[in-house]
Amino acid sequence: MKNLWSISTNEFAGGKESLMRRGNVYQIANGYMGYRGTLDEFGPEESVGSTLAGIFDRVGSAWREPVNAPNAGFTRVSLDGAELSALGRKVRHHEQTLHFANAVFARETVFASRGKTLTLKSSRFLSAATPNLGVVQFSIRCDKAAAVTIRTGIDCNIWDLNGPHLPQLTAEKHGSVLLVQGVTNESAKRVVVAEAVGLDFGTETHETQGHRNLRAIRLHAEAGKTYTFHKYYAVFTDHDAVGTPLPAAAIEAVRQARALGYQACLGKHNAEWARKWERCDVRIEGDDEAQHALRYSILQLLMAAPVQGSANSIPARALSGQVYKGAIFWDTEMYMLPFFLHTYPEKAVELMRYRIKTLDGARRKAATEGPGYRGAFYAWESQETGDDACTYFNVGDPFTGRDLRTHFRDKQVHISGDVAIAMWEYFKLTGDDSLLLEGGAEVILECARFYYSYAYFKRDKGRYEILDVIGPDEYHERVNNNAFTSTVAKETFAIANATVDHLRKNHPKALQALLRKIDIQGELPRFREAENLLYVPAPDPQTGVIEQFDGYFQLGDATVEELKAKMVHPNEYLGAGQGLAVATKIIKQADVVAMLNLLRTRFSTEIKKANWEYYEPRTEHGSSLSASAYAMVAIEFGKLDFAYKYFLKTAKIDLEAKYKVYVGNIFMGGSHPAANGGTWMTAVLGFGGVQADENRVAINPRLCRKWKSLQFQLVYQGDGFKIKITKTSVTINPARTNTRKHTLLVAGSPAKCSPGKPVTVKYRQAK
Amino acid sequence: MKNLWSISTNEFAGGKESLMRRGNVYQIANGYMGYRGTLDEFGPEESVGSTLAGIFDRVGSAWREPVNAPNAGFTRVSLDGAELSALGRKVRHHEQTLHFANAVFARETVFASRGKTLTLKSSRFLSAATPNLGVVQFSIRCDKAAAVTIRTGIDCNIWDLNGPHLPQLTAEKHGSVLLVQGVTNESAKRVVVAEAVGLDFGTETHETQGHRNLRAIRLHAEAGKTYTFHKYYAVFTDHDAVGTPLPAAAIEAVRQARALGYQACLGKHNAEWARKWERCDVRIEGDDEAQHALRYSILQLLMAAPVQGSANSIPARALSGQVYKGAIFWDTEMYMLPFFLHTYPEKAVELMRYRIKTLDGARRKAATEGPGYRGAFYAWESQETGDDACTYFNVGDPFTGRDLRTHFRDKQVHISGDVAIAMWEYFKLTGDDSLLLEGGAEVILECARFYYSYAYFKRDKGRYEILDVIGPDEYHERVNNNAFTSTVAKETFAIANATVDHLRKNHPKALQALLRKIDIQGELPRFREAENLLYVPAPDPQTGVIEQFDGYFQLGDATVEELKAKMVHPNEYLGAGQGLAVATKIIKQADVVAMLNLLRTRFSTEIKKANWEYYEPRTEHGSSLSASAYAMVAIEFGKLDFAYKYFLKTAKIDLEAKYKVYVGNIFMGGSHPAANGGTWMTAVLGFGGVQADENRVAINPRLCRKWKSLQFQLVYQGDGFKIKITKTSVTINPARTNTRKHTLLVAGSPAKCSPGKPVTVKYRQAK
Repeated sequence: MKNLWSISTNEFAGGKESLMRRGNVYQIANGYMGYRGTLDEFGPEESVGSTLAGIFDRVGSAWREPVNAPNAGFTRVSLDGAELSALGRKVRHHEQTLHFANAVFARETVFASRGKTLTLKSSRFLSAATPNLGVVQFSIRCDKAAAVTIRTGIDCNIWDLNGPHLPQLTAEKHGSVLLVQGVTNESAKRVVVAEAVGLDFGTETHETQGHRNLRAIRLHAEAGKTYTFHKYYAVFTDHDAVGTPLPAAAIEAVRQARALGYQACLGKHNAEWARKWERCDVRIEGDDEAQHALRYSILQLLMAAPVQGSANSIPARALSGQVYKGAIFWDTEMYMLPFFLHTYPEKAVELMRYRIKTLDGARRKAATEGPGYRGAFYAWESQETGDDACTYFNVGDPFTGRDLRTHFRDKQVHISGDVAIAMWEYFKLTGDDSLLLEGGAEVILECARFYYSYAYFKRDKGRYEILDVIGPDEYHERVNNNAFTSTVAKETFAIANATVDHLRKNHPKALQALLRKIDIQGELPRFREAENLLYVPAPDPQTGVIEQFDGYFQLGDATVEELKAKMVHPNEYLGAGQGLAVATKIIKQADVVAMLNLLRTRFSTEIKKANWEYYEPRTEHGSSLSASAYAMVAIEFGKLDFAYKYFLKTAKIDLEAKYKVYVGNIFMGGSHPAANGGTWMTAVLGFGGVQADENRVAINPRLCRKWKSLQFQLVYQGDGFKIKITKTSVTINPARTNTRKHTLLVAGSPAKCSPGKPVTVKYRQAK
Repeated sequence: MKNLWSISTNEFAGGKESLMRRGNVYQIANGYMGYRGTLDEFGPEESVGSTLAGIFDRVGSAWREPVNAPNAGFTRVSLDGAELSALGRKVRHHEQTLHFANAVFARETVFASRGKTLTLKSSRFLSAATPNLGVVQFSIRCDKAAAVTIRTGIDCNIWDLNGPHLPQLTAEKHGSVLLVQGVTNESAKRVVVAEAVGLDFGTETHETQGHRNLRAIRLHAEAGKTYTFHKYYAVFTDHDAVGTPLPAAAIEAVRQARALGYQACLGKHNAEWARKWERCDVRIEGDDEAQHALRYSILQLLMAAPVQGSANSIPARALSGQVYKGAIFWDTEMYMLPFFLHTYPEKAVELMRYRIKTLDGARRKAATEGPGYRGAFYAWESQETGDDACTYFNVGDPFTGRDLRTHFRDKQVHISGDVAIAMWEYFKLTGDDSLLLEGGAEVILECARFYYSYAYFKRDKGRYEILDVIGPDEYHERVNNNAFTSTVAKETFAIANATVDHLRKNHPKALQALLRKIDIQGELPRFREAENLLYVPAPDPQTGVIEQFDGYFQLGDATVEELKAKMVHPNEYLGAGQGLAVATKIIKQADVVAMLNLLRTRFSTEIKKANWEYYEPRTEHGSSLSASAYAMVAIEFGKLDFAYKYFLKTAKIDLEAKYKVYVGNIFMGGSHPAANGGTWMTAVLGFGGVQADENRVAINPRLCRKWKSLQFQLVYQGDGFKIKITKTSVTINPARTNTRKHTLLVAGSPAKCSPGKPVTVKYRQAK
């Protein structure tokens, strides 16, 4: 039977693609930084990467991207003078494992050389307790006595997509601590890496060969004896508010860790992970495949979740590398946030603080992106300042070799509404209005201001319209009255108005201060009007189908297969104004259906079904976000087998890693945290049927066939609940520490839940 | 010295391109039909074409295009059994001439075969007096006695771009008259061609070989004797409102012509042409090159001008063939109409009646082209019904082999305003409001209604905007607040309001009937508001430059040469959303400058100069319309040498025929009546400085260096004037038949002009 708490492989060689894939699948991270699933002896050629959260840099005119730290996880061993690598010919056995329970990566490789074998074991983790810290346990054992050299330290050869970002690294040694420091090229951020070892064998010399800052440990290994040492490394950057200079802080950190020792470091780390899983694990009885993939997905989200107080967010490829410029997209609010909001609000609040931190960037974008835009137009691809990293020419054209003009940056305006909705969701589900007061309300009002500046009034129709946008379906650019975008804009006005009402009632002084600060008092009546008069396409009275945008119904009909058969180049893009999909109804991903999922309580099951059935056959699912939205809506009208198929597809995207790692010459590999979030969403909010708003939590389970039970935790307005759903009952176990009694709705029936008093409610699953 | 009243060549062979060019340059036409400048013995391979005005047809899914009539100009000669053709090897001499004075095409070819020579002469004209009639005089002379066969009649092998449009032609003989008739494929229009000859030699037999309806005339030609006969042919279609069946009408027409005889037919034809030139000729002393090219341009316009009562207009390639689908573009109103308005209002009124005739088509387009569009959205490519012949995929992409989506049809909304402005210009310059009453006012109000339905109100700016359009510069699609388009829309509202005011004052009952008919009373206050509140980009206060559209100034700068150097395929299109020009300031043709020319009295010379200097270096002049707009504006601020260069470029476009005849596989050849109109405009309105409005005619001459004098005629509000401009004086010779005294402004000084009393005013040309 499959181990449901790990993933392993004994693949050890292979081409660039397979190395890349394993680097993605086996990555570890702790919110502060990532470390790709590569091996100790690897270098930049094998895509070793330790991506830092929230530190970005640019070289020349290339894409701005996150910075990879110098590789302090580096260790290379030679046996009787012959250097060993899992990619060499001396490998007899190799196995590597990622442990879900504590995000530990371990590998064991047996090398044979000139009649001797050497068994190399290592395991590494990025501390969940001390974010700057990485720890490695490394051991070797030879079957026969042999001369072994272990070179370990900091490799300054950094894998970058568009580097070098740390052009002038200095290698130093401070007592027993190795130190490498540098300053980023454009952003002038200092990055410091220190490394220390706990070692009780061999003789050590300092080497700085090959742009590495290393210690060479030479020993005469006895036959059958295991030699183990530990590496502790710390990464610090200007973003760390430490009282001392960064080098001193880094040196101190590794000395402390070494003093504490490996087991103690691991113990603290494990304790943190135990708490995470206690809050976030989901258990599925009866379906190990789903259980495993779902847990892997949750692991990814937990590893990528920002460090408390960092006001960082989660990039579209998390911390698995520099792909997509390390940028934060709408994916985070729409697909990842629900997981954190329902299980781990302390992380959700960081994601939202990131949008507060980048509000000025959003203001700058509005001021420069179009004539008369005001307020906050959030970046389509957001980095640390909130300025937009998205280029206007975002897709390569294989026909001309030039880049195609896309309007992702300037027309995908739903991003601001996605942020405002997320901010309000946080308030609704936590009941905590402190985020509003510390900038969330300002974000919301500035988003509403942006939409007002973007909207036009159509006098002869007596309505506002949102024109010239791209919805989630990026194949159709510059459309008018896109159902998703207009809905999100209308919601933003409603939320802005509700925010003002809430503050007026509860924090009148804060409201006045805010209104003065951003000089918006005079615009508030317009927001009320826009909430009422903004046009959003309605379901067709006959068919129930909502037109995705003006004129969509008049586009040509085609199947995805028919469309693809017309392609004359495998890499040709289907959108960007001239692509094959543009004149057809084929869409890239859920758009109307994503809207129906976002506002799932607003529409009847019939409307959802009608739109699902209309749009699904016309959807390419060219984005990893698409399947989960379709799964969510399918569940609501009972198409559970289909939903399950899409759930699994979403859940296994990173595990199976079948996606293209290279598109043309561009490296696209990495993890898919939005899909990971979509997986959790489909399991808990979809099959589990959880639907929470400011008033209550409702549970309308629709377990899929295979699942005997589904267990998960929820945090709602500060109180915790363990939920177990079977085919016939829902058991709610309110935490003993809950502050009040809650009434949950189970399949429509109220279930009164007092702190510490489990309640079981029988139900009959809707057909 | 050059003959200023003709063009000749003795080129007789050459490839397809050169045949095509000569076919264009030497064409004749009489408004009812054209006949390309091909030779009697030619067939469809040599692009013989007799294009009918206002008759369109479609085959399958190919472009809808005008119909070519069966070729009744066909005559082929054999000498001692050897067939003669100017393309064969027997030619000893060839010369062909187009006479400007009467639009007669003549050719003389000497053939040599087996020691004998045969001299073939023919001349042809399409009667200006009897539009259905074509007449050919044909003669042969042999230097030695020889057996000659002349086959003449109607060739049913028709050159079509997207035919066959007359799939089932029947060949008949009625007495001595040959008759061919057929019905168009899709439009089911009957086309009948009759032919008769006046012949006094040889023996005649009837032949219907090779899909031709011919008479074979066999004779034993005596040495040195000239044998001459005449062909009379008539074309009738369902558009001819004749009382009798069309075959009878056609037969009767050729019998009458034959009875009248060649000289009498030619005499009537010549008399008509004499009247045309009397009204329309422009004389330039001191510059034969300009004189010749200008006269050729005027000839083209006069030949293409619609038959009285036809309510036809002039296609972009006139009657030179089927290129551009025979469609009428904005070119007609903006570039051709001024010539007719100032010299030949009876033709101008037909052009305008065409827009009245096609108003329902424009209404259909509005109703179907966008959500909530109302009123009249005129076709970008207009045929007989006013439905749009423009496709959504209008430009071939050499990279993919597919057609590019262009927005000419759906977004080039300035067309409706161009029509409304033209309608109002007619009223202003003729003082004749009957056109308004017979449908012109309805057109104007429906155009205003369209713009109102298209416009959005921007509440926070307190203004209407015209969004998402293409201006004359077609390289930048889907732009907002295009200076040209918004200006034209604002003018349309002003004109609609002025129309209502005029009718209210002068024709109150007609106004009421019209308002009821189109149920528009309630919308009139909106038109007043829109006239005031529609936003039009203003000159920058610092530089005077008007931004072509929102965001234009932020586009990349480049020279046309730099841009073209980036092309990777010679046929790649620079626009359509992804072309090389799209992200740059490079524009296809005059846009802001075209607007400044259209509203030439509204802007100061400084503003004109500033915009000219800004935009000219950024203009590709990829349209034949561009140079004349730049020339016009250049004249206004004294850049006369430049203006002259662009004037000549425009004037010689058809004469030199250097343009590409084929673009890819698409035949693009034909005449350029808009450039012809631009030539006249530059000469008379530009260098001549004529500027007429509803109140008066002003003349501010700026003769270019070479021109000693410029003489032309004007018709203004029904009265005629001969004008002669020298470097120092303007002489105005009001027609004796004028109905009233006029005060013209010459370089700012009033010149009182009584009927029949010439006035000379001295002036000093502005620097």
